[in-house]
Amino acid sequence: MTLDYDERYFHGNPQNSFHKAVNIPDVIVYPRSQDDVQKIIKTCNKFKIPIVPYGGATSIEGHTLAPYGGVCIDLSLMKKIKALHVRDMDVVVEPGIGWIELNEYLKPYGLFFPLDPGPGATIGGMCATRCSGSLAVRYGTMRENVINLQVVLGNGDVIKTGSRARKSAAGYDLARLMIGSEGTLGVITEVTLRLQKLPQHSVVAMCNFKTIKDAADVAIATMLSGIQVSRVELLDEVQMKAINVANGKNLPEVPTLMFEFIGTEAYAREQTQLVQKIVSEHNGSDFTFVEDPDAKMELWKIRKEALWACFAMAPGFEAMTTDVCVPLSRLAECISKSKQLLDASTLLCTVIAHAGDGNFHALVLFDPSDEDQRQEAERLNHFIVHTALSMEGTCTGEHGVGTGKMKYLEQELGIGSLRTMKRIKSALDPNNIMNPGKLIPPHVCI
Amino acid sequence: MTLDYDERYFHGNPQNSFHKAVNIPDVIVYPRSQDDVQKIIKTCNKFKIPIVPYGGATSIEGHTLAPYGGVCIDLSLMKKIKALHVRDMDVVVEPGIGWIELNEYLKPYGLFFPLDPGPGATIGGMCATRCSGSLAVRYGTMRENVINLQVVLGNGDVIKTGSRARKSAAGYDLARLMIGSEGTLGVITEVTLRLQKLPQHSVVAMCNFKTIKDAADVAIATMLSGIQVSRVELLDEVQMKAINVANGKNLPEVPTLMFEFIGTEAYAREQTQLVQKIVSEHNGSDFTFVEDPDAKMELWKIRKEALWACFAMAPGFEAMTTDVCVPLSRLAECISKSKQLLDASTLLCTVIAHAGDGNFHALVLFDPSDEDQRQEAERLNHFIVHTALSMEGTCTGEHGVGTGKMKYLEQELGIGSLRTMKRIKSALDPNNIMNPGKLIPPHVCI
Repeated sequence: MTLDYDERYFHGNPQNSFHKAVNIPDVIVYPRSQDDVQKIIKTCNKFKIPIVPYGGATSIEGHTLAPYGGVCIDLSLMKKIKALHVRDMDVVVEPGIGWIELNEYLKPYGLFFPLDPGPGATIGGMCATRCSGSLAVRYGTMRENVINLQVVLGNGDVIKTGSRARKSAAGYDLARLMIGSEGTLGVITEVTLRLQKLPQHSVVAMCNFKTIKDAADVAIATMLSGIQVSRVELLDEVQMKAINVANGKNLPEVPTLMFEFIGTEAYAREQTQLVQKIVSEHNGSDFTFVEDPDAKMELWKIRKEALWACFAMAPGFEAMTTDVCVPLSRLAECISKSKQLLDASTLLCTVIAHAGDGNFHALVLFDPSDEDQRQEAERLNHFIVHTALSMEGTCTGEHGVGTGKMKYLEQELGIGSLRTMKRIKSALDPNNIMNPGKLIPPHVCI
Repeated sequence: MTLDYDERYFHGNPQNSFHKAVNIPDVIVYPRSQDDVQKIIKTCNKFKIPIVPYGGATSIEGHTLAPYGGVCIDLSLMKKIKALHVRDMDVVVEPGIGWIELNEYLKPYGLFFPLDPGPGATIGGMCATRCSGSLAVRYGTMRENVINLQVVLGNGDVIKTGSRARKSAAGYDLARLMIGSEGTLGVITEVTLRLQKLPQHSVVAMCNFKTIKDAADVAIATMLSGIQVSRVELLDEVQMKAINVANGKNLPEVPTLMFEFIGTEAYAREQTQLVQKIVSEHNGSDFTFVEDPDAKMELWKIRKEALWACFAMAPGFEAMTTDVCVPLSRLAECISKSKQLLDASTLLCTVIAHAGDGNFHALVLFDPSDEDQRQEAERLNHFIVHTALSMEGTCTGEHGVGTGKMKYLEQELGIGSLRTMKRIKSALDPNNIMNPGKLIPPHVCI
């Protein structure tokens, strides 16, 4: 543990200037085992001291802020791989391990864990925020890829949520309750993950459209055709321009779709051809695909580094990243409505969508030293959320609630649902020590 | 509503003689809307009257028993399809609709709902019991296929669990908490389901093995290869004999695997060939496959009617169906250990496994009028559950807890998890009116 100011300041401050840190934790502890975690929580519970669980701290909705000070539990020392079961295609890990590190370990076994959030994210944090990413369209989110959790609850109880069987109907689904609970119910101390076979072959394809609507229509038609893409990502013309600037490329600066198809060689190619046909039926052009590993990696690198490409266009700026998700049929309309406002704004804004899931991010760039720009970014975010909510969508597809999205939950879910969440929290964390001030809006009473 | 004795007797009695009905409901009500359900629950909550939600009543673990009498809420009049969104691939239904009826409705749209429990099961009941079936290996269980629920909780609150977006990170996963809660938290009044495209093509294959181990090894090798079967079902030699007797067939009476492959014609065939190769590497024989629709239907009919085939060998008997699920690598061992006991028993026992998930059922046939036979069936069930629990498995892969599996939960999950479940139940149903006596063992205190 440490009381060092710099460490506490580092842990208590968000990456983003739009989540204000009104306080920092009083102490940082680095448990090495579930027992350590339990001792810390029991002590904090006895003295009603707030706890903030801390993983890779890559979340962007203020999840790791410490508005009431207290104890920050940094899980970076708990990163062991406890057991790999190749024939069961599962792995048991401690929460502090990163997904990239885990996949490096799994590679020689021909297996991988199919979620790809930002680099630095840890498995525990990914559980806590119900993370997903570009592969969710094929493999699902964290919800679908966790077999079992061990958790120390706010009341000090240690629970395991299930067995190691791939499916079970044995009681309440406590694993799913913990996944997405953002550290407000307990600290995840062990995770059993379902693994996937590394695909034999993959094809990466790209194509261009005159309008966002055409691009979104192709994503819908692809899903409706029964083709199993592993990725289908939409980038708008501004994002393509940023990519050109950052990478010295000369790609067409128009709405663009990027696909990945996986499976056997024959199957990946068959799917590529089927999608090529769909693209041509929807005014798409320049359909190209690559199979060479280096060429594929270069294309995905472009997509993965989209955020950094934006910063190349606006050095020193910050990005506010929106995260709405709507029913597929409303995606084009939601993006178009949002873009009308974004294009009219003085701020530079790009759009990237996980189009197969109906989830899109607007990256709104602003100068963090300019309060007007920050407010304008918030106005845009606010508008996009309300647009999505009016279309039966959600304010957060994958980034979580934290402090940033609390204010939208009542409109999205209704007060009855929020009261239910608060009742559950009170039942498992009666002293409200677990990550207080996050997820459940403060006005909700039970 | 009705006070008619015959109706009450019918609703209060299990299909199986091994779940004793110590009571029957005092009244049966047939709500027509969520408002009706809310009024009933509010009234019952006020006067602390037990409620038993009642769907298709096809569950076999005593879920619909009324040990404390009270009000049985029969949802058979709430079976409307409220909205079909073809481009979103989702449908909004009332809970009383059957999955077979729903699929008939969806067929002209080229869509289907990919879970296939016993005929008669309703969507609400399937949610409540976290149902799955033979297609779960490809499409997941009810957990993975529900987008949103509306529920009237035991305290009278109406909640919706989410938006209509395909993924969301907005707060606690209340839908997953309700799925598998077996009516102990509330009554599900509306369900939004994720749909799938009807496959273009399918191939059904069958092959034989000398031992259960060889058959299970093929199932594991198939999963490890990355091949996406849509079904992989294992039937033991006794089950094959029952099928021969019931259907006048002459199939080899040895451990048998049945596969289904779906997708484009080329892909389904490619997968068939890949599995044929795996089968030949594991001492399998007689690999045959069919593509003709009638031939495929006949093969699946054999599998689907396996239970009835057993009754043909023992007319007038009842079946006790076990339901354990273990990590894939332990499936062969678990079945073999179980079969040693089953084969030594005086009772006729067959085995059917959803082998890709590690889930198997032993069908133990007994004469319901013979108490010794009933006790012997229970002894076998008990042994199989303990064998599975010793292998990191679960006492129920898909049938649920009801009253039948309560006694195994503490060993499987630990007292901390059960206390947590009870705390959640108390928070949402403070008067314990919702399906009392089910799921949470009576000795659990908070």
